[in-house]
Amino acid sequence: MLADLRVPPFDPALRARVQHAIDVKTKPQGSLGRIEELALQLALIQETEAPRVEAHLLLCAADHGVVAEGVSAWPQEVTAQMVANFLAGGAASTVFAREMGCKVTVADAGVAAPIPPAPKGAPALRRAGIRPGTRNFAREDAMTPAELSAALEFGATLAREAIAEGATVIALGEMGIGNTSSAAMLAHKIAGIELAPLVGPGAGLDGEGVSRKQQVLERAAARHPRRMDPMAALAAYGGLEIAALTGACAAAAAGGAAVLSDGFIASSAALAAIAARPEIGPRVIFSHMSREPGHRLMLEALEARPLLDLDLRLGEGTGALLALPLLRAACAMLAEMATFGSAGVSGKD
Amino acid sequence: MLADLRVPPFDPALRARVQHAIDVKTKPQGSLGRIEELALQLALIQETEAPRVEAHLLLCAADHGVVAEGVSAWPQEVTAQMVANFLAGGAASTVFAREMGCKVTVADAGVAAPIPPAPKGAPALRRAGIRPGTRNFAREDAMTPAELSAALEFGATLAREAIAEGATVIALGEMGIGNTSSAAMLAHKIAGIELAPLVGPGAGLDGEGVSRKQQVLERAAARHPRRMDPMAALAAYGGLEIAALTGACAAAAAGGAAVLSDGFIASSAALAAIAARPEIGPRVIFSHMSREPGHRLMLEALEARPLLDLDLRLGEGTGALLALPLLRAACAMLAEMATFGSAGVSGKD
Repeated sequence: MLADLRVPPFDPALRARVQHAIDVKTKPQGSLGRIEELALQLALIQETEAPRVEAHLLLCAADHGVVAEGVSAWPQEVTAQMVANFLAGGAASTVFAREMGCKVTVADAGVAAPIPPAPKGAPALRRAGIRPGTRNFAREDAMTPAELSAALEFGATLAREAIAEGATVIALGEMGIGNTSSAAMLAHKIAGIELAPLVGPGAGLDGEGVSRKQQVLERAAARHPRRMDPMAALAAYGGLEIAALTGACAAAAAGGAAVLSDGFIASSAALAAIAARPEIGPRVIFSHMSREPGHRLMLEALEARPLLDLDLRLGEGTGALLALPLLRAACAMLAEMATFGSAGVSGKD
Repeated sequence: MLADLRVPPFDPALRARVQHAIDVKTKPQGSLGRIEELALQLALIQETEAPRVEAHLLLCAADHGVVAEGVSAWPQEVTAQMVANFLAGGAASTVFAREMGCKVTVADAGVAAPIPPAPKGAPALRRAGIRPGTRNFAREDAMTPAELSAALEFGATLAREAIAEGATVIALGEMGIGNTSSAAMLAHKIAGIELAPLVGPGAGLDGEGVSRKQQVLERAAARHPRRMDPMAALAAYGGLEIAALTGACAAAAAGGAAVLSDGFIASSAALAAIAARPEIGPRVIFSHMSREPGHRLMLEALEARPLLDLDLRLGEGTGALLALPLLRAACAMLAEMATFGSAGVSGKD
């Protein structure tokens, strides 16, 4: 689906107009640093001098067959339990989403265990219905090409629906026991980053656990050539939630929304989308630098500078949600700040 | 006034209770990184397991006699014009304050020029009435001890009033053409940091301007011993707005509010307060790392790790305002997140 999308370059005339509007605001030029850059980026993405933040988090969960190899500190049933926690509003991401005024779609992109019943009044759960978790990628490909296509299309549909409801910013969030293993493999195969430094503790492995994970992933890596096409890498090593977010990222970019990425796993989805269609890159905002060590390497490969660095390593879109107020401040600066002329403030000597 | 304040140590029993409450939330322990640290710090400062963010920005402006030496790229009249812009709501800080739901007190701690009339319906301007700007500290002390006391007390009164109105977080903001010169001198004399790397472009000096500023500040530094008591340094080299913020910082800490510092200049006020009364230190949150190069050195001397690093160099409390949502998210995490028990989520293997 990514090959068919139209993602135009930014309009240089709009860029010049917005930069001028920023420069005549009552402040030394450039003194709001990255807030000024964000204002310009949002204006170019939304094709307007008055960008707005209507944010919608796509929170996609799925399970990973590779957990059979002992690569996670947590039991697989936690994925389903956390989906129920999302629906009940008690997880970090749903708490932050309320605090930040962000809509949320909770999606089961392929959870293995039955999802516990949600409380009355909980939002509807979107279900991909592709398969209950990926195959064990240490032994065989995680998905067939058809399953990958379905997962990409599922995520793209979620993004298109959010945009149709008014979203101008699509935030990427994920949950899936074992999914740092997938993200590490994608960064290795798509961006060509060495595998060893990409393998970290995830949600809490000890040193011995990290060594075991390292061995499993090295064995898995040997099944395919060193560098792979992003879609081939997603089918071989991806997660259903990661593929859904890749589709969402691409559809959001094509739909004129800004994509707000999250940590190591969400960024691996954005990496796959950008590797497939580089024009998507300028439409993705990397919200934060995760403490999971591979994230820094992935962001360097993307030449991306994250907005926040708060030692987060939770996922679920939490870093994206914490960065939302910076996007809102950037829009408010453009819309509401006085100019030197309008405020009667003298210029520089 | 700082000598008389009571600033108690944090309660270890409360610390243990709050840390436990954070650790049983549905997330890997520590995975919300600095948000968890903030939640604990706010709880300890506010002496409650349920900290809240009711934020109030004290935006203090004043002029600096040392601008006669050509240390700023901007004319002195801009200070008064920007105070009018604050009252009209068109400055970056007042735009961000609206966006972030933060009350603002605009205070004239010693502006030299007449302040242009504010529009109808503008908030009242608080006036210190001490003197219209400091003396030129390149030639003589900026303030007499009595003037310093009055400025400290003025700021302390603003903080106490904000707390009486319900504030739990006091944000520090400043405006004053020439005030990076004061901040550099305070860091040099109070923290013992070498002067040269503390001298930066401020609001936009070119290389030649920075050299001239460097020479002026070296000459000024020679008037007093290399290290000084913080109050002596404030009188010798401070600004009236900086002294007001020092008083506000101290009174807020004593009043049980968290202090949210801003950039290079606001941090110099916090530095003076903490040097005078080290118990204040754990009650100050450093919101961001300014692009003004001396700020990094000042934060290192304070052993402070700022929350944000966004290339800001505007002041006015803008960095503090951008960090406020992180404090709110920390409080929401404590108040609203489910525990493993309540959500039926399994623990780690």
